[in-house]
Amino acid sequence: MRMTPEQEAEIRAAREVKHETRRPTVPALEEILFDPIPVLDHGFVRVIDYMGDDAAIVQAARVSYGKGTKKVSEDRGLIRYLMRHRHTTPLEMCEIKLHCKLPIFVARQWIRHRTANVNEISARYSILDREFYVPREADLGVQSVANRQGRAETLSPERAAQVLKLLRDDSTQAYDHYLDMLNLDDDGKEIRPGEPGLARELARMNLTLAYYTQWYWKIDLHNLLHFLSLRIDDHAQEEIRVYGQAIAEITKRWVPHAWEAFVDFRLQGMHLSRAEHEALRRMLAGEDPDLTRLGLSKREQEEFKKKFGK
Amino acid sequence: MRMTPEQEAEIRAAREVKHETRRPTVPALEEILFDPIPVLDHGFVRVIDYMGDDAAIVQAARVSYGKGTKKVSEDRGLIRYLMRHRHTTPLEMCEIKLHCKLPIFVARQWIRHRTANVNEISARYSILDREFYVPREADLGVQSVANRQGRAETLSPERAAQVLKLLRDDSTQAYDHYLDMLNLDDDGKEIRPGEPGLARELARMNLTLAYYTQWYWKIDLHNLLHFLSLRIDDHAQEEIRVYGQAIAEITKRWVPHAWEAFVDFRLQGMHLSRAEHEALRRMLAGEDPDLTRLGLSKREQEEFKKKFGK
Amino acid sequence: MRMTPEQEAEIRAAREVKHETRRPTVPALEEILFDPIPVLDHGFVRVIDYMGDDAAIVQAARVSYGKGTKKVSEDRGLIRYLMRHRHTTPLEMCEIKLHCKLPIFVARQWIRHRTANVNEISARYSILDREFYVPREADLGVQSVANRQGRAETLSPERAAQVLKLLRDDSTQAYDHYLDMLNLDDDGKEIRPGEPGLARELARMNLTLAYYTQWYWKIDLHNLLHFLSLRIDDHAQEEIRVYGQAIAEITKRWVPHAWEAFVDFRLQGMHLSRAEHEALRRMLAGEDPDLTRLGLSKREQEEFKKKFGK
Amino acid sequence: MRMTPEQEAEIRAAREVKHETRRPTVPALEEILFDPIPVLDHGFVRVIDYMGDDAAIVQAARVSYGKGTKKVSEDRGLIRYLMRHRHTTPLEMCEIKLHCKLPIFVARQWIRHRTANVNEISARYSILDREFYVPREADLGVQSVANRQGRAETLSPERAAQVLKLLRDDSTQAYDHYLDMLNLDDDGKEIRPGEPGLARELARMNLTLAYYTQWYWKIDLHNLLHFLSLRIDDHAQEEIRVYGQAIAEITKRWVPHAWEAFVDFRLQGMHLSRAEHEALRRMLAGEDPDLTRLGLSKREQEEFKKKFGK
Repeated sequence: MRMTPEQEAEIRAAREVKHETRRPTVPALEEILFDPIPVLDHGFVRVIDYMGDDAAIVQAARVSYGKGTKKVSEDRGLIRYLMRHRHTTPLEMCEIKLHCKLPIFVARQWIRHRTANVNEISARYSILDREFYVPREADLGVQSVANRQGRAETLSPERAAQVLKLLRDDSTQAYDHYLDMLNLDDDGKEIRPGEPGLARELARMNLTLAYYTQWYWKIDLHNLLHFLSLRIDDHAQEEIRVYGQAIAEITKRWVPHAWEAFVDFRLQGMHLSRAEHEALRRMLAGEDPDLTRLGLSKREQEEFKKKFGK
Repeated sequence: MRMTPEQEAEIRAAREVKHETRRPTVPALEEILFDPIPVLDHGFVRVIDYMGDDAAIVQAARVSYGKGTKKVSEDRGLIRYLMRHRHTTPLEMCEIKLHCKLPIFVARQWIRHRTANVNEISARYSILDREFYVPREADLGVQSVANRQGRAETLSPERAAQVLKLLRDDSTQAYDHYLDMLNLDDDGKEIRPGEPGLARELARMNLTLAYYTQWYWKIDLHNLLHFLSLRIDDHAQEEIRVYGQAIAEITKRWVPHAWEAFVDFRLQGMHLSRAEHEALRRMLAGEDPDLTRLGLSKREQEEFKKKFGK
Repeated sequence: MRMTPEQEAEIRAAREVKHETRRPTVPALEEILFDPIPVLDHGFVRVIDYMGDDAAIVQAARVSYGKGTKKVSEDRGLIRYLMRHRHTTPLEMCEIKLHCKLPIFVARQWIRHRTANVNEISARYSILDREFYVPREADLGVQSVANRQGRAETLSPERAAQVLKLLRDDSTQAYDHYLDMLNLDDDGKEIRPGEPGLARELARMNLTLAYYTQWYWKIDLHNLLHFLSLRIDDHAQEEIRVYGQAIAEITKRWVPHAWEAFVDFRLQGMHLSRAEHEALRRMLAGEDPDLTRLGLSKREQEEFKKKFGK
Repeated sequence: MRMTPEQEAEIRAAREVKHETRRPTVPALEEILFDPIPVLDHGFVRVIDYMGDDAAIVQAARVSYGKGTKKVSEDRGLIRYLMRHRHTTPLEMCEIKLHCKLPIFVARQWIRHRTANVNEISARYSILDREFYVPREADLGVQSVANRQGRAETLSPERAAQVLKLLRDDSTQAYDHYLDMLNLDDDGKEIRPGEPGLARELARMNLTLAYYTQWYWKIDLHNLLHFLSLRIDDHAQEEIRVYGQAIAEITKRWVPHAWEAFVDFRLQGMHLSRAEHEALRRMLAGEDPDLTRLGLSKREQEEFKKKFGK
């Protein structure tokens, strides 16, 4: 279960209230405000608040007294110009706040992005829920040999079943013992009445990294796009990429012009090294350049061929 | 003149538009949204956007699915608790965006606060306005001897008149020559038709530090309070303190509970050193402690006496 | 085992090399450079590099061409002045780099300090060691009722033995299954020859939060002192406080004047609220002020009494 | 005059002292340590301290107990890999501290890089020197029409002479009046004995943006390279680019492998948009793609042609 009936009621209640504001609003984002977008087996992302829209980027770039420009088409052009030339400070003028539920091992990668504000539930203070991530069979990739931090084809069905059982059993047992050390049952009642439980800050260490945590996470658009460029990349771990993809959908609703420019110039763009540029110039001139002599390592040559079919 | 009729019209137009939103709104802040609050002779601060309110602090501290607490009184209590114990991360969940017009020498102090987003008008790109700060006679303090970075009593009226004339004349002449180098008059027409002007990025260096610049400035509540604690302090330069005071009034409208707690625990609170604490304990026990033997330097002793009248 | 013979040899080799430098050096820190200081059952902290010393703080405060001041005594005075008045930027001019081994649940608290540089070993890439934290019996505090995020008196010896067994068994089993999923034994050989193992990035999620991780951590002195003020505080969890204490000893060796000033003005200093200040003034005047009427909550009154015995 | 005899003596004295250290040292950087590298007419950059070298990057990437790798050639390969894949955290493990003297309008651009530590001389506290920047005739570019924030060909010799005179006279007069307001002559003696001077924090506003300021500036290698990529770029203003170039030479001495990789992959590399990539693929296949239909704006098409001669 992703959410209790009480939590669902709280969200419904929040969604019903409407206020009047002079601030810019984004109807496409208001539409999904507070609503959880499911990610993985128990996780979610939901938008709590936002500041600014596409026009706010232009407004800040112009240090404007009113709106940024008169026409939406000019906004789009300026945003593309800013993105192309990496003038990123106006993007920092938009801000978004999310509530996320995510496995601890995902949270540990995520938190490495330091330019964000975070409020995480404290397992020193609260008791974590009995919720842990179990991959789907199709996600059980074997260790990649080519890429030491990736996965390749999936395990055999038999082996997959064994692995899933190990994961499930160990996390279940870890939680059983977590509660036992706290002297609490699943309903929060004392198992051994009157006996003190172990401090929460200690008991938590028995949980596995598959357990879910939650946080409020607030970040500006520039740093969000940087986060997304790394986290929806092929090299990112699948379990964080699905969060990245959910947030990408949110961003697209929020600032469609900025998102389009980001896709064109950064996400689907690419970087060329000095040597790759030189190789391309020669290929366009009809030559067949010696990539090794141009200084590309074997691995760089493979990557280059993938990009340009040489 | 603080604003052109066009700029005033832009602000009026922006203020007239109203949207519907599910986000928390703060009526007291909506009331003044976009409206410039005058500061110094040509400067201003105006609120462009904001995210969150007092309740949003509580909501983040609780990593809540809906609102933070049921009652406003509980919100106030929790906010005071957070402020007292310097649990500042929930304060980071509120954000405000301001448009400021300020003298360059003030901007140079202000920008030292690094945890903010800034978009400043570029004098490489744009031509600055003919607007510079001239203090009022009452602000012309003489160099303090006791405090090497402060001012004491004011200049004599005759000397003040001379100083004001120097300030006015030099900044006026600097701008005249700035335009001359750009080959432009005050209406933006070429002085010597057809002749190229000096690059803006070079001509600007002739302006004085009294000239006004403008920026969009966005910051979270935690860092804003830190900024204010330094900038509305007695040791801050008067010319930045008046900006701090204007922003303090804005903050009070925006998050009244957080502001009250900030005043009680930090702004009007004080810090005691180990030795001061010891001195106080002895004084309360009826002793007359030797402050020198307790390790307080002469200057620390003076400060201590000011605080506690010993 | 804290370190392999190979690792010990690497450290010894590094310690033997000496270079000549024009940079300031701190003999008391050079003495322990690279040497691991044991923390908890398997962890450590060791100094990898440092930049600056007490004199470098003064040098930066003066934007000096040579040394900061002529005499050590002047350095001490200026450093105390800076610390007292929270002029913290010169403290940022000193930097230290540490190598730490620490349980994951400690790392999760630690990483919340964002103003630092971190390189952590990646369990996507590497296989973690079979090392997890087990508290000593004396550390097994029960959940505090007064302070929801603390611990009180310890468990009974019988209960403690049960808890320690649970912690040890679950973490041991988690690692056994971690290796099994990777298809590796403790010597790194395949258990089922030729069969692919689960990707490391997935298998790691079966480990508990008690497992040790490692990182390089680099931070400037100002932010380090802020970290220490929070982490060697009574409210910090014991398991991170012991790291804080080890780093405090390092800091004392590194910048003894800054450390002394930090202890006097911040660590053993205290903060008074507006109302506490008022109460003290009245007490010194011989009155017996009504703390409730002065606005102190019940909890604040208790804290006040602890500080001043009222 | 760039430096007083006293300042030169201080630097000489500092350079003469040698210490023994276990830390990594970089002889090529020790060689120039503390020595000012002249920039513009009165400015300089000098290295005050540094932490780490090329090997320290590798050591951090490996979270190593000793050195990073056995061979220098492996270090180079790993550093190139990190740079190519933008794994930038190990670069943050090197730090450098500089003392810079620079015109205020340059300092205003520079300070926008927020991820650095700064200690600037305070004109509230100190009296600034009579030193201002005057461009060479060859640097007096006219305002570019194509690029609103750039400069094109230089002014005519006659016009240049007039401009230089204006710049010199206005800054000279501004300083004369600055001193007059302070009631001080160039030797620091009172002009009108016994009369109080205007507070320094006020008098300074009469200085122009051409005046020199000074600061200590400390930054990690990752953020330094980002700074350099923007500031030695063609689009940067010449007056900051010369500082960038001086620091580039320093960086090359300090971390030659990292510098080489930075040049190959970033400085002399380039970014392709999605549409540019598509155009290139078609051109390599022998087609003559319609750039407009591929979505490149007129300006983007010009940039593309410059890169690839289409």
